[in-house]
Amino acid sequence: MEVKVVRKILDVNDAMAAQNRNAFGKQGVFVLNVMSSPGSGKTALLERTLSQLSPEIRCAVIVGDVATSHDADRLAKSGAPVVQVNTDAFGGDCHLAAHVIGAAASDLDLSAIDLLIVENVGNLVCPAEFDIGEDARVVVLSVTEGEDKPVKYPLMFRVCDAALLNKIDLLPHLDYDIAAARGYIRQIKSDMPIFDVSAKTGEGFDAWIKWLKKTVAAKSTAAA
Amino acid sequence: MEVKVVRKILDVNDAMAAQNRNAFGKQGVFVLNVMSSPGSGKTALLERTLSQLSPEIRCAVIVGDVATSHDADRLAKSGAPVVQVNTDAFGGDCHLAAHVIGAAASDLDLSAIDLLIVENVGNLVCPAEFDIGEDARVVVLSVTEGEDKPVKYPLMFRVCDAALLNKIDLLPHLDYDIAAARGYIRQIKSDMPIFDVSAKTGEGFDAWIKWLKKTVAAKSTAAA
Repeated sequence: MEVKVVRKILDVNDAMAAQNRNAFGKQGVFVLNVMSSPGSGKTALLERTLSQLSPEIRCAVIVGDVATSHDADRLAKSGAPVVQVNTDAFGGDCHLAAHVIGAAASDLDLSAIDLLIVENVGNLVCPAEFDIGEDARVVVLSVTEGEDKPVKYPLMFRVCDAALLNKIDLLPHLDYDIAAARGYIRQIKSDMPIFDVSAKTGEGFDAWIKWLKKTVAAKSTAAA
Repeated sequence: MEVKVVRKILDVNDAMAAQNRNAFGKQGVFVLNVMSSPGSGKTALLERTLSQLSPEIRCAVIVGDVATSHDADRLAKSGAPVVQVNTDAFGGDCHLAAHVIGAAASDLDLSAIDLLIVENVGNLVCPAEFDIGEDARVVVLSVTEGEDKPVKYPLMFRVCDAALLNKIDLLPHLDYDIAAARGYIRQIKSDMPIFDVSAKTGEGFDAWIKWLKKTVAAKSTAAA
């Protein structure tokens, strides 16, 4: 019974996601959905990512949180347009749904944007189930979280196009087996690109930014 | 529409939770619901908690994960009976629902248990909405997660009876303002007991174990 109800919600969501995808495509906007646990360092990662992409790639951000505008306030300092979504206005939702993204995007001038980054609600389960009309999905794991998260939350890793292992500056202080973490990711998705990064020090960002630029460019080439 | 559907699921859950609470109460079992983000160190915390409570308090554990039995395998080494629930059997649920706890508890001999600890699915949103028939709820935050999680995920902190700040052994390596974290918790719940602990070194466990024993004892005294 519960599963049936959820199925209906997901069908409505998929229809809205297709509308979003069509609208973003018409304006040539690439949409990246960034997902993770709470506290994996998504916002710090995006602060540095925005500063490295600008001004070559014109970015905007939609930030999802159950409550507060802390992350949006931080990201707005980059100069990129930022829209904060608080899901407590939608019953405290644990994810961003496609209709929420559609509404938030209407506050942005899509014709002035190349890349729209969506910072999803911190949650390794539910956001993986909701298509928002994105072109690519990445998952951020902090190396403080333990190696086995990919096999415990397999859907998230199955639906993502790349994984980032963040906070590698802390590795000397942790009993963390980064090779085991990579093994668990590849157990779920054998060809997953994996980037070891520190949003704090910038280590590893060159490879991540190169992948992101290439991924965004591949779509505009395909569309041209 | 979406909210109405969720409301119906929660009503069914509340009825099942009341059944669980009645069944646990009859057997004199205290139920503790432990919630957190993925990777906050719940399992390590419970490993040490079980070893400090035993043999004075007879414990059992129900462990929830979307997939794998990694945590149950670790906790079973304590000698306590452990039941693993994989929510991917229930559509990949992001929380433990009351009916799932009722089914899992039927695998335990409740007459031989004083304290049933439920390690919920790693998620700061959805588990806060589902009463499972517990007597107390605690939330575990890792100091690697950033200080502002309590205000970003307010419901979780509102419904909990105590908060644990785990991994304090890492504080020397982090830019973490533990006073700010406590302030954010108290902004949501002004009288919340907060325990700073390290599941790795055991620091801070005396106060946490003392609180837990007192909380469990208070219920048996009230029932006697």
